[in-house]
Order: sequence, then structure tokens, then C-alpha cells
Amino acid sequence: MMNEFELIHRLTRSLPTNETVVTGAGDDCAVLDVGLPDRFLLFKTDSVVEGIHYDPATPAEKIGHKALGRCLSDIAAMAGTPSAALVTIALPHKFDIHFVEGIYQGINALAREHAVAVVGGEMTRNPERTLVSIAMLGFAPRGKAILRSGAKPGDALFVTGELGGSLTGKHLEFEPRLVEARWLAEHFSIHAMLDLSDGLASDLRHILNASHVGAEVLAKAIPIAREARRMAKSESSAKPPLLAALTDGEDFELLFTVASRDAVLVLDAWKKQFPKLKLSCVGRINSGEGISIRDKDGVRPLTAHGYVHFA
Amino acid sequence: MMNEFELIHRLTRSLPTNETVVTGAGDDCAVLDVGLPDRFLLFKTDSVVEGIHYDPATPAEKIGHKALGRCLSDIAAMAGTPSAALVTIALPHKFDIHFVEGIYQGINALAREHAVAVVGGEMTRNPERTLVSIAMLGFAPRGKAILRSGAKPGDALFVTGELGGSLTGKHLEFEPRLVEARWLAEHFSIHAMLDLSDGLASDLRHILNASHVGAEVLAKAIPIAREARRMAKSESSAKPPLLAALTDGEDFELLFTVASRDAVLVLDAWKKQFPKLKLSCVGRINSGEGISIRDKDGVRPLTAHGYVHFA
Repeated sequence: MMNEFELIHRLTRSLPTNETVVTGAGDDCAVLDVGLPDRFLLFKTDSVVEGIHYDPATPAEKIGHKALGRCLSDIAAMAGTPSAALVTIALPHKFDIHFVEGIYQGINALAREHAVAVVGGEMTRNPERTLVSIAMLGFAPRGKAILRSGAKPGDALFVTGELGGSLTGKHLEFEPRLVEARWLAEHFSIHAMLDLSDGLASDLRHILNASHVGAEVLAKAIPIAREARRMAKSESSAKPPLLAALTDGEDFELLFTVASRDAVLVLDAWKKQFPKLKLSCVGRINSGEGISIRDKDGVRPLTAHGYVHFA
Repeated sequence: MMNEFELIHRLTRSLPTNETVVTGAGDDCAVLDVGLPDRFLLFKTDSVVEGIHYDPATPAEKIGHKALGRCLSDIAAMAGTPSAALVTIALPHKFDIHFVEGIYQGINALAREHAVAVVGGEMTRNPERTLVSIAMLGFAPRGKAILRSGAKPGDALFVTGELGGSLTGKHLEFEPRLVEARWLAEHFSIHAMLDLSDGLASDLRHILNASHVGAEVLAKAIPIAREARRMAKSESSAKPPLLAALTDGEDFELLFTVASRDAVLVLDAWKKQFPKLKLSCVGRINSGEGISIRDKDGVRPLTAHGYVHFA
């Protein structure tokens, strides 16, 4: 069976388009020119499904937080500003009103933090499990939405925060990097950016494919989250920490590239602006294909995929 | 257990808002002022679920047609013009690629008819059944989106097409009344409008509640679809045709009100403009509460509800 990415490629080859479309399927958000002199419109949907994206015992507020947070993270990946959301909740026939109210509380609290209006939505039935889908609108300065396709050989590759072990808790509580992404885009020429959802080893390939470049990643530079180290120690069957950081997914951190001459400037300015959030230069874009990883034993292809849906 | 409408009322009492919101939850679409001098943005999501909104044996193209058509019908209900759509498909782990391609073919064909761009979306898992959710953007002339809240006592109440029996086929093949709705809004002062999804006896109440008015419906004026009459004849357990027309739902016809002095003008102009599509004056808005129905035996309250989700 083809995987998610192959299927999406096949489905998106010949989609209907019109004069408003700047960037259609294939980036973090669709980018639309609706005639605003200074801004492009961003448009995105994302969903979470019980038993797939969260455990059935998850508190309702966290389900709502995650559902909205995922969409906000995609707006961040374009260096955009979110504006309005619609909420679709599909529910079994019998459900607890307080559960639904809890989902909305999680959504509403995060929406208020980012001045996002929740302008309606839909309730429908899904007999076996709950599904929450968010549709999101946002804006980016005209011509300045950061795409996946702008990486250039020689670029430095950066990642925010720490990676791996997200399923122990962060995936339900993460803060979308909206402020950080806009600051980056306002102060530097960001060549390409996305948010990490399937893991660096998988998601970096989207930048490479869209930009027709390769990348070399430095093993020792990968910021490994404490949770990934803890899991590796406590469970004999757990992934080694580095593999967890590269492939666990659900990090919702920013991965971006800048020209190598800007690399030190970005790092220094970041430390002053966001002293509590790590920024790591984890590698370099090259003119090759795919990802190679450099560690103490040398350079080899990085074959460890992140989580690939439908694989 | 509270029904769908009571739950939605409870959830939408205190949603986050911002300066872009013209009309939030509670109408056919959200209406947003994003700074376009001449237009408002319309924003809507709607979904169809296997076994709920369509039979599992339904051809994939028709599932796609219905999913997009429902959203387009909501844009029509505001007299808007649709512009861009995102497609979310939630699927069991094992699925047929041709099934997914068929859904897209149904979506894409209808999208092309109305110059709608399909700008991406998402594939996710829903182990037990397929769910298709559409997020839709459209536009209405600034200040001229037709809401549900503008009906006035004395208004004539109109409905397009014929009602009832939709589940025999029309619900999968209906044409959203986009052209007709825009023509109406351009040529007449339409006070209130929506599209019929749950049945006239249910949906009319949304106009009445939003406008703080009542309505009297004329039984003999209700345009009953041939399928509703046929079902009543062939199945002894079927609803009487009039009840089917009032409560079957999934008609996706327009229900609207105009000042009584415009009623004959609307009917005459409509016949010239859309000779193949029936337009019926089915009653009158009054200053009372709820719906009454007049037939040969007199006037009585219309208690027959349309299909109410979660009831």
C-alpha cells in the first residue's frame, strides 16, 4: 500500500485552482491572494482522533488544546498570524456534555491567548470515537509567508526547543511557536520553515523535496528532550534518545534554514530575545539528495523515518 | 439529553472573538471583515460521515459531491460566492485508493463548476468509518451577506424547488443554489435566507428565532417532491407526502423572506430567469411565535419537527 505522502501526491496533481491561489496543497498552509494590498490569507485544517492522536483517558481540555494548537503551529510555520477558527466535533451518540464543554474550554483558552476568534463550527456523529477537526484562517505579510521551498545549498539548519518523548505529555500541552516565528521572519531572511509533527527525520524531507536540496545533520547537535532520555533509561524496549529525537514526532517545534552568513547572528539575537527557549543549529543544507547524519563514526545516510501515516 | 441546538447554544454563548467578526456562530456561515473594501469573507465547515449522511454502498464520487455541495449550499444561503476549499478525509486503515480518488473526483468536478480552488487538506485515520469534512471560504458584497435574522412581520416566505424524499437520491446529487441566491440578492431586498438541511419545519425555526418573529405556512402551497409522493404510495409505513416535505430534510433548497410588496415581483422575475426551477410562496412571517400551518381544517401549530440531531 502506498503511504500517506505518496497518496497525497497522487491526489493533489490536478486539483481545481483559481486566480486567488498563491500556494495550494503541499505546504503548511494554503496561501491565498484575496485582494488585500498588504497581506496574504492563510488557510489550514487539522484534526485529532481519539485513540490515534490522543488516548481516550485524555482530559477534554487537553484534547481541545492539541486540536487548536496543531493548526496554530502550521500558521507559525508560515510566520503568520492566526485570526479565526471553526470547530468540528464528531461524537458518539451518547456523550457527556461536560466532555464537549471541556474540549471547547481547551480550544477557547488557547484561542484567547492568540486573539483568535472561534466563529462557529459543527457537531456531527461518529459512533465509535470522538474526532475534532479545526479549520483555521490567518494572515501573513504579502509575499512573506515562509514556504518549504526556499532552502538553498549552504544554508544553516535550525530547530527550536528540544525533540523526542513528546507523547509523555508535551503533545497535549505544547505552545505553538507563533511569536518566535514572526520574530524570525521580521528580523532575518528565513529561507524555508515548517513545524515538526512527524519527526525531524521525516519532516526535514519535505523541505528537501520542495527545495530540491539535501541536508547533513550533526548527531551531537540534535537537542534531545529530557523525556526522550528518561524513556530510554527506564524502558529497555525504548528507542535510543537520538533516534527518539529524530523520529518520535509531535514536537511542534520550528525547523528552518537561513543563509550561513546569518547563522551566528540568528543564534545571538535569539538568545537575547528568547532566553528560555533553546535554538540549535543542527546541520546544513547541501546540493545532494536526502539526509545524511554525521556522528563520531563518520557520515551515513539517515534512513530512520519519522512516523509515516498509513505506512 | 439536550438536543443538538440546545448544546450548540450552550457552547456558543461565550466564544473568543476579535475585531474581524461580523457574524460568528449561528448563521449559515461565519462572516468576517478582513479589511477588503468591498467584500466580507465567508467561512464554513461541514462534514459527511459514512452510515450517517450516506450509505456505505454510495459511489465515492457522490460522497465527494455531497460533501462539497453541503458547504456550497451554505455559501449560497448567504448569497455568497465560494472561493477555496480544504478537504479532510478520515479513513479506516485499509482503504481502496480508487475510493479516495473517487471522493476527490466528486469534489473536484463540483468545485470546477463553481470556480472553487481545492487548496489542500488532510488525510487522517478513523478506524471504523469514512468521514469527509470540507472547510470553505467565500465572499459576499460588503454588508450584503443575507443573514437569518432579517425577517419582518408581513414578509412573504419563499422556497425554491420541491421538498421531501431527498434520501431516494437528491441528497447525493443536488445542485447548490448559488446562482439563484446571488440573483435574488442582486435584484431584490432579501430579508432573511438559509438553506434547508433538516427540513422546513425545523429550519424555518432558525429564521424565526434569529428574527424574533413567527410564521404561518400554507399546507397547499408546500411544493411536494414527486419522490415524497411516490414513497407515500409505495410504502404503507411512509410519512404522508406533506409531512415528508416538511420534515425529511436534506433538500438543500433556499428558504427566504421578502417584503410582501415584493412577493409578486419576485415570482414573476424568477419565472423568467429560472423557468425550470419552481419558486413557491409558502406562507407569511407574523409577529407571533413558532410556526402555524393552515389547511382545509383551519390553523394549528406545526409541531412536526424536522430531523433533530442528538434528539
